[in-house]
Amino acid sequence: MKFGGTSVANEERIERAASLIIDEVNTGKQVAVVVSAMGKTTDKLLALAADIHPDAEKRELDMLLATGEQVTASLLAMAISAKGIPSKSFTGWQAGIRTESIHSNARIEDVDSKRVVDTLESGAVAVIAGFQGIDHDAEVTTLGRGGSDTSAVAVAIAINASACDIYTDVEGVFTTDPRMIEEAAKLNEISYDEMLELANLGAGVLHPRAIEFAKNHQMPLRVRPAHINGEGTMIKEEIEMENNLIVRGVAFEEDIVRITIMYDTPYNGSLANIFTVLAEQQVNVDIIVQTIMDGEQPSVSFSIKNEDFAKAMNVLEMNKEELGYKRADFEVGLAKVSIVGSGMVSNPGVAAHMFDALRDASIPIKMVSTSEIKVSVVIPSMYMKEAVAVLHKTFELGHVG
Amino acid sequence: MKFGGTSVANEERIERAASLIIDEVNTGKQVAVVVSAMGKTTDKLLALAADIHPDAEKRELDMLLATGEQVTASLLAMAISAKGIPSKSFTGWQAGIRTESIHSNARIEDVDSKRVVDTLESGAVAVIAGFQGIDHDAEVTTLGRGGSDTSAVAVAIAINASACDIYTDVEGVFTTDPRMIEEAAKLNEISYDEMLELANLGAGVLHPRAIEFAKNHQMPLRVRPAHINGEGTMIKEEIEMENNLIVRGVAFEEDIVRITIMYDTPYNGSLANIFTVLAEQQVNVDIIVQTIMDGEQPSVSFSIKNEDFAKAMNVLEMNKEELGYKRADFEVGLAKVSIVGSGMVSNPGVAAHMFDALRDASIPIKMVSTSEIKVSVVIPSMYMKEAVAVLHKTFELGHVG
Repeated sequence: MKFGGTSVANEERIERAASLIIDEVNTGKQVAVVVSAMGKTTDKLLALAADIHPDAEKRELDMLLATGEQVTASLLAMAISAKGIPSKSFTGWQAGIRTESIHSNARIEDVDSKRVVDTLESGAVAVIAGFQGIDHDAEVTTLGRGGSDTSAVAVAIAINASACDIYTDVEGVFTTDPRMIEEAAKLNEISYDEMLELANLGAGVLHPRAIEFAKNHQMPLRVRPAHINGEGTMIKEEIEMENNLIVRGVAFEEDIVRITIMYDTPYNGSLANIFTVLAEQQVNVDIIVQTIMDGEQPSVSFSIKNEDFAKAMNVLEMNKEELGYKRADFEVGLAKVSIVGSGMVSNPGVAAHMFDALRDASIPIKMVSTSEIKVSVVIPSMYMKEAVAVLHKTFELGHVG
Repeated sequence: MKFGGTSVANEERIERAASLIIDEVNTGKQVAVVVSAMGKTTDKLLALAADIHPDAEKRELDMLLATGEQVTASLLAMAISAKGIPSKSFTGWQAGIRTESIHSNARIEDVDSKRVVDTLESGAVAVIAGFQGIDHDAEVTTLGRGGSDTSAVAVAIAINASACDIYTDVEGVFTTDPRMIEEAAKLNEISYDEMLELANLGAGVLHPRAIEFAKNHQMPLRVRPAHINGEGTMIKEEIEMENNLIVRGVAFEEDIVRITIMYDTPYNGSLANIFTVLAEQQVNVDIIVQTIMDGEQPSVSFSIKNEDFAKAMNVLEMNKEELGYKRADFEVGLAKVSIVGSGMVSNPGVAAHMFDALRDASIPIKMVSTSEIKVSVVIPSMYMKEAVAVLHKTFELGHVG
């Protein structure tokens, strides 16, 4: 069981988490718990650090931030004990979570779960500080965004758990964001691959690293609400088709920029160079569309996030000569809308159905990208909400569940 | 260099501590630093824990509280780095502070200082979380009251430091509390033994365990102000006599209770039993006065702190039959006033001088206790301040320094 920051934000919620844990214990299960820092703790610590050192060493930030989860772990262990079930908290290193030697964004290499397993065998609940580990030099590391989800999956795999339940402040995984589309429906099940696409597409319920990790070890994941009773959404390899759904969700993301690079000479291999220099500067390129038509000047378009825009333009300008392009254009104010569903692979025509629906709604499409289980379009931001609503309706997602 | 909670209570004070550290580095010294939790952090964490579990396991409280010093250590390391000197923070376990397996009040057994020494050799300042260690089962332990002072002394000894400077919110060690007696003067030097008596007697600047530890390893200790410039007070084995002072300080402590046990039969060995049962219940007995006079009923009086009073009376009542006493009387509202000075041992008559001075001021003495370097009297609390003033003047302590 993993509890995120909002689910342990105050004493009352810690008590509720303890009750949920004890409910599981009372069904005869051994329970290991992974926790995030309480509410805004991490942000507060970061603000304190920024006042003291605007560009503090990542090693020291890791030392600072790791305290947040340790506080939650000990308080939750106390809350569980107070309700009559023995419980012990563990820091990341005590729980045997070993990572590579990279501060602020380390990957878990290995979990030596002996201590946690011994605790479970003794009849106690093990509460583990998420988001953190220790490297081979006994330095404290943190796992970056979504780190506690990854900790939870890693621990679940290491202790050979039957499932990993991620408690959060939403009811589960929805067909689209219910804050935007009223008809959005909770899914009972979704596959790892679908969830990965949704996570990468900005649905934000679970971090992609955690899903990938679970998929690689076939660990069933469940997104469950901490604040209300509910079964949530199960994420696993093979899922039962709900109402024969081909499309399972509509994801969206704002603040997309399209950059177009134009050449006045035929394509000369510099295309790879463009994405190499961008990658070297940590600019994440999403959709890439290349056009090489006879008699026309070749060009390549790609989409990036707004936050990387200045960096990307700077990198391109600095390397203009080497890259050998004529002109770089850009278009801001774009959004990406995607449909996701494992059923697409065996159902041709889904993309066409999507384009038809958008054309009928007079929504212009700027870029298209497809994979086996998703179709993404880049459109002007002003049409984003409408596009999501149209697609949600077109693929009958309001009738799920 | 050790910085207490008030000396790192906010960003501004952390910056000041960093400046003091850099001043030392700039004299060519290698500097290891030990820190307490910021200001009221420990109290806040304890209050949070108390809400969740009124009687939380000490193991979990240790896990919770240990985060406080870790936060300070990382922030101070950042502050030092921000000023251009490399610095690394360490938790207690990272700094190799190994303790016995007792939660909330562990004693340090050993310090494996390799990592700290390597850091110092590399030219960086090592900032170590005080108050905490790790036991042989890799459990986080804390050291109890005054723990960070003890950590500082232990680290100083382990790294073979030339001295251990304890930075605090007072100017140094005074002849008595300057908040009560205006004439109180700062001492430039004091011996371990004198300081031990003053610490035990409630002067409260340094924890007795830290002083004892320093004495056993002949580590020079210095109490220095963090908030102003000042040389503080040096604590070491042999000190130069300041103005030939025989008495070096007047300590005092309120909320003392005297308990008197009366027997109607001759002493039969039960005296030892009384103090055994009290010790078993963690009641700290201070002064013991026994009277066995011919033709009178034997009795024994002892003093305890007010906070232990209910427990002591309960223990005595519960064991009345076994202890075989007739009646237990008590007197509350007492205080203890003590004069301390190494010179007493070679200057007979100091106690008599003290009693004379108190008698001249019409202050009644309820109990007396002496050691080689101190004389304590128990008097009614209402006379405490007057007694301190009289003794401070009698032994000419206002003219020190």
